[in-house]
Amino acid sequence: MRVIPGKTGTVYLIGAGPGDPELLTIRGLRALRRSEVVVYDRLVDPVLLDEAPPGAERIFVGKRGGHYSFPQSEIHQLMIRSARSGKNVARLKGGDPFLFGRGGEEVLALTEAGIPYEVIPGVSSALAVPAAAGIPVTHRGLATSVSIVTGHGRGDEPIDWGRLARASDTLVVLMPLANLRTIVSQLVLHGRALSTPAAVIQDGTRPGQRQVISTLREIASEVEIAGIESPATLVVGEVVELAQVSSRMKKEGWPDLECGSRASALRK
Amino acid sequence: MRVIPGKTGTVYLIGAGPGDPELLTIRGLRALRRSEVVVYDRLVDPVLLDEAPPGAERIFVGKRGGHYSFPQSEIHQLMIRSARSGKNVARLKGGDPFLFGRGGEEVLALTEAGIPYEVIPGVSSALAVPAAAGIPVTHRGLATSVSIVTGHGRGDEPIDWGRLARASDTLVVLMPLANLRTIVSQLVLHGRALSTPAAVIQDGTRPGQRQVISTLREIASEVEIAGIESPATLVVGEVVELAQVSSRMKKEGWPDLECGSRASALRK
Repeated sequence: MRVIPGKTGTVYLIGAGPGDPELLTIRGLRALRRSEVVVYDRLVDPVLLDEAPPGAERIFVGKRGGHYSFPQSEIHQLMIRSARSGKNVARLKGGDPFLFGRGGEEVLALTEAGIPYEVIPGVSSALAVPAAAGIPVTHRGLATSVSIVTGHGRGDEPIDWGRLARASDTLVVLMPLANLRTIVSQLVLHGRALSTPAAVIQDGTRPGQRQVISTLREIASEVEIAGIESPATLVVGEVVELAQVSSRMKKEGWPDLECGSRASALRK
Repeated sequence: MRVIPGKTGTVYLIGAGPGDPELLTIRGLRALRRSEVVVYDRLVDPVLLDEAPPGAERIFVGKRGGHYSFPQSEIHQLMIRSARSGKNVARLKGGDPFLFGRGGEEVLALTEAGIPYEVIPGVSSALAVPAAAGIPVTHRGLATSVSIVTGHGRGDEPIDWGRLARASDTLVVLMPLANLRTIVSQLVLHGRALSTPAAVIQDGTRPGQRQVISTLREIASEVEIAGIESPATLVVGEVVELAQVSSRMKKEGWPDLECGSRASALRK
């Protein structure tokens, strides 16, 4: 790897969206296509990796067997080293980089190192996964606010379920499965009725999407019976009553975006 | 308009994203390109309208002079009529259709009428606009939850600021300007410190983006002095301290996506 003095690559922090690769943004696709290094997480669809130039390095930094294959500090070093060697870096993250994506930490590391970067927001699973089950997180007369949290609070950052239980009309919990019974009990303990509609959606927006629509009283048992697995999203609130599977669920395949010379603007 | 018996068009409810037209999704672009009718709101970039087929009808249904040019029920009828006449309809909305986008109401109307539809989620302003000002809505050690609400509560659906004030670590208020002083007072009255960092971002992700970074104590005055105008977004919480303008703010222009015969898959 030859270092070109004075030439530093740009790091693109790209939100890859909730699962369906076509929910990547046009800006995200353009950045991916001009990157020589792709640093990607679990839950990023392989079809997106094919959009990087053929010779690009593709480096997986997500969880393997429940553990991160790279500590966060090494991800920072990897991006900084690659950019300093003159390469553009696509940092592909599921969902949106700034909603539980640790994008803020990466931006701080890049800023300190003086590396140019661009944050390219993505479609968040917190909104798109409920939508894929027909659930609008807000709806006139049912919900005028929504709160979003992750279900796996770290030891040093416990989640205040009491505060969140009645915070907003709709509550979305990302990655709820490991603590589902605790979460549900806490919500009920802090004032949510047992009859409150609740849904858990697995693999939202992906071909294997499945969902359990129930109430706080039964959701944990029904999720176990259905054998729902990660990645999953919990939605709590009256809006869940609107759940319906959109009339379109068929998969059409990745569009052919490789399209001759006039595509050059998209390639740059 | 000739009605072809048995052939009904599909309505695509498309989230056009926060402003920058390149933050439309690939799926959204594909749907737009196969629509013969485009029904669009204010805040949808004109460059997107050009992506519909040349002969497509383009119908503006957003606010004009502060008032909706079409009542919601007429928007429903327009979509239903167009689909029944065999045309595909792109319903282009700013942000995400299911977060304060009234997409849920439109889905119910389409379902009742038996019209096939597809919801195509978008990048929400609630996350992308803070991101464009360098503010991650969550950040390790600063914020593990976020709540989202609009600032213009309807008379029949007043906003419970007491509940929202301390609901989550980060609070995002869409369309806050009309009630900014009231919102700030309510948040302080219900326990948020006057020193809490707060930001208001105008035209987030657009070329004219401007922001005021301050605290709850001063934000309302500073927004007035700066002459911040709609569309704007308020962010309240410690994460605002991370605000910085991304190293990339230059505009590159809309990519040339019209690219010869191999683009046909994208056209379909």
